[in-house]
Amino acid sequence: MAAKNYATLRVSTPRPNIALVELHRPDALNAMNDQFFVDVQDCFSALHANPDVRAIILASAHPRLFTAGLDLKAVQSGMLPQHEDIGRCGLLFMNLIDRWQRAFTAIDECRAPVIAVVHGMCIGGGVDMICSADVRVCTQDASFSVKEVDLAMAADIGTLQRLPKIVGNQSTVREWALTGRTFSAAEAKDAGLVGHVVADKKTAMDKAFEIAEVIASKSPIAINGTKVALNYSRDHSVADGLRQIAMWNASQLQSQDVVKAAASILTKQTPRFSKL
Amino acid sequence: MAAKNYATLRVSTPRPNIALVELHRPDALNAMNDQFFVDVQDCFSALHANPDVRAIILASAHPRLFTAGLDLKAVQSGMLPQHEDIGRCGLLFMNLIDRWQRAFTAIDECRAPVIAVVHGMCIGGGVDMICSADVRVCTQDASFSVKEVDLAMAADIGTLQRLPKIVGNQSTVREWALTGRTFSAAEAKDAGLVGHVVADKKTAMDKAFEIAEVIASKSPIAINGTKVALNYSRDHSVADGLRQIAMWNASQLQSQDVVKAAASILTKQTPRFSKL
Amino acid sequence: MAAKNYATLRVSTPRPNIALVELHRPDALNAMNDQFFVDVQDCFSALHANPDVRAIILASAHPRLFTAGLDLKAVQSGMLPQHEDIGRCGLLFMNLIDRWQRAFTAIDECRAPVIAVVHGMCIGGGVDMICSADVRVCTQDASFSVKEVDLAMAADIGTLQRLPKIVGNQSTVREWALTGRTFSAAEAKDAGLVGHVVADKKTAMDKAFEIAEVIASKSPIAINGTKVALNYSRDHSVADGLRQIAMWNASQLQSQDVVKAAASILTKQTPRFSKL
Amino acid sequence: MAAKNYATLRVSTPRPNIALVELHRPDALNAMNDQFFVDVQDCFSALHANPDVRAIILASAHPRLFTAGLDLKAVQSGMLPQHEDIGRCGLLFMNLIDRWQRAFTAIDECRAPVIAVVHGMCIGGGVDMICSADVRVCTQDASFSVKEVDLAMAADIGTLQRLPKIVGNQSTVREWALTGRTFSAAEAKDAGLVGHVVADKKTAMDKAFEIAEVIASKSPIAINGTKVALNYSRDHSVADGLRQIAMWNASQLQSQDVVKAAASILTKQTPRFSKL
Amino acid sequence: MAAKNYATLRVSTPRPNIALVELHRPDALNAMNDQFFVDVQDCFSALHANPDVRAIILASAHPRLFTAGLDLKAVQSGMLPQHEDIGRCGLLFMNLIDRWQRAFTAIDECRAPVIAVVHGMCIGGGVDMICSADVRVCTQDASFSVKEVDLAMAADIGTLQRLPKIVGNQSTVREWALTGRTFSAAEAKDAGLVGHVVADKKTAMDKAFEIAEVIASKSPIAINGTKVALNYSRDHSVADGLRQIAMWNASQLQSQDVVKAAASILTKQTPRFSKL
Amino acid sequence: MAAKNYATLRVSTPRPNIALVELHRPDALNAMNDQFFVDVQDCFSALHANPDVRAIILASAHPRLFTAGLDLKAVQSGMLPQHEDIGRCGLLFMNLIDRWQRAFTAIDECRAPVIAVVHGMCIGGGVDMICSADVRVCTQDASFSVKEVDLAMAADIGTLQRLPKIVGNQSTVREWALTGRTFSAAEAKDAGLVGHVVADKKTAMDKAFEIAEVIASKSPIAINGTKVALNYSRDHSVADGLRQIAMWNASQLQSQDVVKAAASILTKQTPRFSKL
Repeated sequence: MAAKNYATLRVSTPRPNIALVELHRPDALNAMNDQFFVDVQDCFSALHANPDVRAIILASAHPRLFTAGLDLKAVQSGMLPQHEDIGRCGLLFMNLIDRWQRAFTAIDECRAPVIAVVHGMCIGGGVDMICSADVRVCTQDASFSVKEVDLAMAADIGTLQRLPKIVGNQSTVREWALTGRTFSAAEAKDAGLVGHVVADKKTAMDKAFEIAEVIASKSPIAINGTKVALNYSRDHSVADGLRQIAMWNASQLQSQDVVKAAASILTKQTPRFSKL
Repeated sequence: MAAKNYATLRVSTPRPNIALVELHRPDALNAMNDQFFVDVQDCFSALHANPDVRAIILASAHPRLFTAGLDLKAVQSGMLPQHEDIGRCGLLFMNLIDRWQRAFTAIDECRAPVIAVVHGMCIGGGVDMICSADVRVCTQDASFSVKEVDLAMAADIGTLQRLPKIVGNQSTVREWALTGRTFSAAEAKDAGLVGHVVADKKTAMDKAFEIAEVIASKSPIAINGTKVALNYSRDHSVADGLRQIAMWNASQLQSQDVVKAAASILTKQTPRFSKL
Repeated sequence: MAAKNYATLRVSTPRPNIALVELHRPDALNAMNDQFFVDVQDCFSALHANPDVRAIILASAHPRLFTAGLDLKAVQSGMLPQHEDIGRCGLLFMNLIDRWQRAFTAIDECRAPVIAVVHGMCIGGGVDMICSADVRVCTQDASFSVKEVDLAMAADIGTLQRLPKIVGNQSTVREWALTGRTFSAAEAKDAGLVGHVVADKKTAMDKAFEIAEVIASKSPIAINGTKVALNYSRDHSVADGLRQIAMWNASQLQSQDVVKAAASILTKQTPRFSKL
Repeated sequence: MAAKNYATLRVSTPRPNIALVELHRPDALNAMNDQFFVDVQDCFSALHANPDVRAIILASAHPRLFTAGLDLKAVQSGMLPQHEDIGRCGLLFMNLIDRWQRAFTAIDECRAPVIAVVHGMCIGGGVDMICSADVRVCTQDASFSVKEVDLAMAADIGTLQRLPKIVGNQSTVREWALTGRTFSAAEAKDAGLVGHVVADKKTAMDKAFEIAEVIASKSPIAINGTKVALNYSRDHSVADGLRQIAMWNASQLQSQDVVKAAASILTKQTPRFSKL
Repeated sequence: MAAKNYATLRVSTPRPNIALVELHRPDALNAMNDQFFVDVQDCFSALHANPDVRAIILASAHPRLFTAGLDLKAVQSGMLPQHEDIGRCGLLFMNLIDRWQRAFTAIDECRAPVIAVVHGMCIGGGVDMICSADVRVCTQDASFSVKEVDLAMAADIGTLQRLPKIVGNQSTVREWALTGRTFSAAEAKDAGLVGHVVADKKTAMDKAFEIAEVIASKSPIAINGTKVALNYSRDHSVADGLRQIAMWNASQLQSQDVVKAAASILTKQTPRFSKL
Repeated sequence: MAAKNYATLRVSTPRPNIALVELHRPDALNAMNDQFFVDVQDCFSALHANPDVRAIILASAHPRLFTAGLDLKAVQSGMLPQHEDIGRCGLLFMNLIDRWQRAFTAIDECRAPVIAVVHGMCIGGGVDMICSADVRVCTQDASFSVKEVDLAMAADIGTLQRLPKIVGNQSTVREWALTGRTFSAAEAKDAGLVGHVVADKKTAMDKAFEIAEVIASKSPIAINGTKVALNYSRDHSVADGLRQIAMWNASQLQSQDVVKAAASILTKQTPRFSKL
């Protein structure tokens, strides 16, 4: 897997089958401008199509924080659409929002599971972004804020849609979203937004790599099917979800991986699975 | 905002843009009779339409409790429909339930966020009622019960529909709903039904006002859009939720509030937003 | 209620109106073979149709564990379908999965609430199974694993569909399902998978009987309606759920149980309700 | 049933249990202004609540046409909301559309079936309106147009939502809606928008009364249940629709009307059913 | 395929791979009693599981008619549930309706396509029944009636749910269902309820066998997949339907039937496909 | 708008704001190979993004037919995925189907309405393709076939999902899809698949241009909103559809096009609307 350079992201392969995507706008506190969303879309589409990638870690290359959220200077400099006709301007906004939503949906629908590592501030769009990941790990000093309300807007790139389904606690989510107040790593853990809180960035990366390595060692048939089914079930009834996985497994259970895995359990050997 | 008197509710405006709605049937432990549902519907419809109201606190005026739930004496005195034909009686029941459901749905859909404050007992219909609020605060001595099962009925004005989506834990919800047992403030907090447990009623009201003031200080464009999106996403898939907020924000992001908010952040000044 | 013998289950009625279903394949660590799914389907269909049964306890007759999950030896011996044509083999898999899913759905849709008691290991299909129960109790030494990923398969008999809606925390569920790692009773309690963790099997059974007896003492009209409404609301919007219970209660609130219950509360006597 | 006067509607009871609602703005070609929507909402809510009304005929009191659609003069005179802030103006539009939609939804959800009679032009909002009726009859010289596109707007009070589900032919509906062209009674009949095309207004009213009298002679339990089920099934899957009617009929089949009807068929006598 | 005798049905295999199911209560005008629904459920479940059956014709063995609908004498003799408690009686009704619905759903979900042939009267439950078939053929003298309204009930075993989705014309369906009036073969053809109207019973059976033989000659992989997809799409959005068929075909397109069919087209030979 | 060349499509702009897309594989009877789907996706994505395009005509450049459907020679030459592992092969099939579905969904979701013109044979994938258009016109000698069943496959790129919602008649659709038989222009018109049947290709193109010119003369705000709402309503309940258009129109009704259109109607002048 060759690395690809993006203006706002650094992508590498620090361990076999594990990609590392780092937010990287050092001069702008990793704030999100339009290029950032283009890069995220491109990056995760490429990772989705790359069969060598079996797990992805999403982190920040900035020494002190994950992201400051939407790039307010870009907003001031005309990043948002303008048109003298309100109707046409509205369509431009819908297009922009749709394009930004697709960037984070590319994370959500990426074949390989995504483990987000948060240290320091994770503001506004940062929360939207990590809600598209599968597992979240953070440092003790991480802090979060559904900040969009302070920009006089309802968050529109994923937080209000995905956060309640991750956290499963509307009392907390609503207080966060309606007040925009900062909440700590401990509160995020308590509510279920993050799965692990650890001492510092290095420990958090170690934890993320530990999880990623376990995932990368499994049959990619099983990992892919599990992620697809979890996403599908999140958005459908139990009955529809049961039908989905039955249809899905009609082909997937005929994989040799199942034979290989069953044999390896009985023989207590470690199986190795080929890529998709 | 002029106060309006209701037979079973007290409504006031203790602070600018913040309405206080208090259950007030002092002689009946705030038990819910038919008039109570009429009053709740009227009261929250009026608050919904009042652009001066930006946050609402829902509490009890009774010194010792939130509510004893359904008014059993009214049940005994013929509050429930009667008709010699079972089919027609069934339609009368559907109408009654629908009307009572609409009363609590008026809280759920009220433009301004609602913060419920519970002290003492919150029984049966009381749980249905607070599940329609956005944020819940209670005192240490608060206690709750999904009591309908002891009336030989499945709760039908919101608890079974909203509580599982608030709490996100079916083990707990099902035990509460199937046994009708009383549970404490601590258990309610642990399960996520309430967001804050504090020492006493005064502290609870202070906490509620603190949250309400933060909400009331934000752009009403943002608060309204956030509540609408959270309600919509609760009941739709992630994909449908993303489309909803994109359409919604096509007009709302063209508000001057966004410009004003961005400017205020960069200039570190406190913005003031006009009413809707 | 006459007991019925099953090859892989023991069914008894240790207390009035309370059925006890025990997994019972002592020589095979309660592993799940095809007969097991046939038995579960038959057993819970019979319990569903039996009006004398008002609560069910689901436990393991094995001294050390709940279940080792899918029977790997049966897999090796040809339990899974085989056909030289891939398309026809796929249909056989869909039929098998559908049949196994129906076995656990029979638990989910059983009229009487089901309380699962887990001690020791609860692996793979065991997690699918207890996710179909209403309430879960376990011992301190219980351990769980969404093990299917180690068999190179996406879990397809309920875990991926029901577990996220029980637990309401996608961070945790996804880590469990994608890594297959073992998690403890404490972690299961913290995430909300189990409602009670107690010292040992005997205490767990006591707790389960305590809950079951409360449920069995209530009006079966109320218990049945509550379970149906909770299942329905899990899979529908709040609005659709509210309509469901209004239609349901149009007949159920005309039951004499409601009159009897209201009277018993006012007279502080214990009501007795006849069977359905 | 006492008649009630509305500014834009005439309501009468020409035959027992049959209400006649006539559009009546003679000086304005029955064009729809804001008062019209208020009147429609009030009128059909009242008819819905009136158990003496078992069928409703919706027609035009104008000698030459059904309606010219939206009142353009009212639009020019400021009927549409205005606000200097685009976001707040958008909310005012949403409120207005919602209110107008509710007026026609009151027809759709009215307990008694509604038979629309169209003669002459039925333009724009007129099509939205008759799509909320249950049965449509028109004269040979009737003509229709989904005219909103010529007002530079997507129809937003029901045509685009209900017409395709009435007609079941997207080729035709899309051509009508995208071109705004006038189509004849014959084309409307061929596509299924209207059920009967007759020679003139008098014959059309006779046909409508003929259908209405049949409906009014049936058990209101059956008529109400049938309309509710048809509306529900339009918007749900077959499986959900089947569950709905099973729950509904749990109370409704216990009506004495069923006994009476069965007896009357066997004895070949005409039953008479009391009101709801 | 061995024939099986049912009390109310005759089942035979007049041509290879084509089953013929005939309604057969000669003394009762094929009226539907409880045994009839038991038989339909058993019969179509057996046909569903029989891989030798590739198409099914559903017809009447009565010389003059398809069916008179619900058996009124059985209704008079206590076929409907009775219980002194209204709530419990309601549950018995729900169970009965659910059981009868499942009988017709077994036709709907039967692997092999079902072609209904109607001659003479097809009343009430008869319309519910043929709406569960895939294709409908009738004679010129066939007549139909959604008769339930004359029994003071809303049709609850399929007509109100399936007929509108078959016919795609709500004007006609609502008039039929709300008035209960008899409609002719020509009207049924015009509305799309039946696909072919032919001169007499023999010609209708010939037409049905002609269609059945074409279906039986195709790959059962393709026929099964097509029926499943049509049923699924009827009840889901276009997007969900597209996902369903992609998952389904992941295994089914790997069948050798596809290779065989493509080769046979290029070589212009008639392929023969083995059973499922 | 500059024309762009595609290997299998010809694109031109014969009249202002109207694009013409022609299937163009003259040596292969316009059969669909993998490149064809790539081209359709690219072509319609580009047209979607081109604000100068207000209506699109989709036709065939072949003198005798629309398309022969899937390219069987390409199938024989290895167009379909192959992999020695069945599970991995299944995923490759899902990817291929998904990609081909997206090509036709790009037609469905293209901002400008699409008018399909069919002459001669329209086989298999051709029916899938025209079902993604908004309006269909054909010649008298056109013939159609849902041919996939003869390839031993269930149609998986749109016919089974979209055709029933276009035609609204399951009897006809199911016979077509289950038998694969050829049906004529007259039958297609009768069932509602095509809106107009005309004498020959030239007349069909004239009809298509006539409709396209009307569409292109309207406000693009209105045309876009109408198509979006029709697509949305096809896949949602009436209630959800009404909410969608209310949110959509909150911005779109603030367009100057509405003012301009209203003025032009009152002054009887022809308005001209700027592009989006």
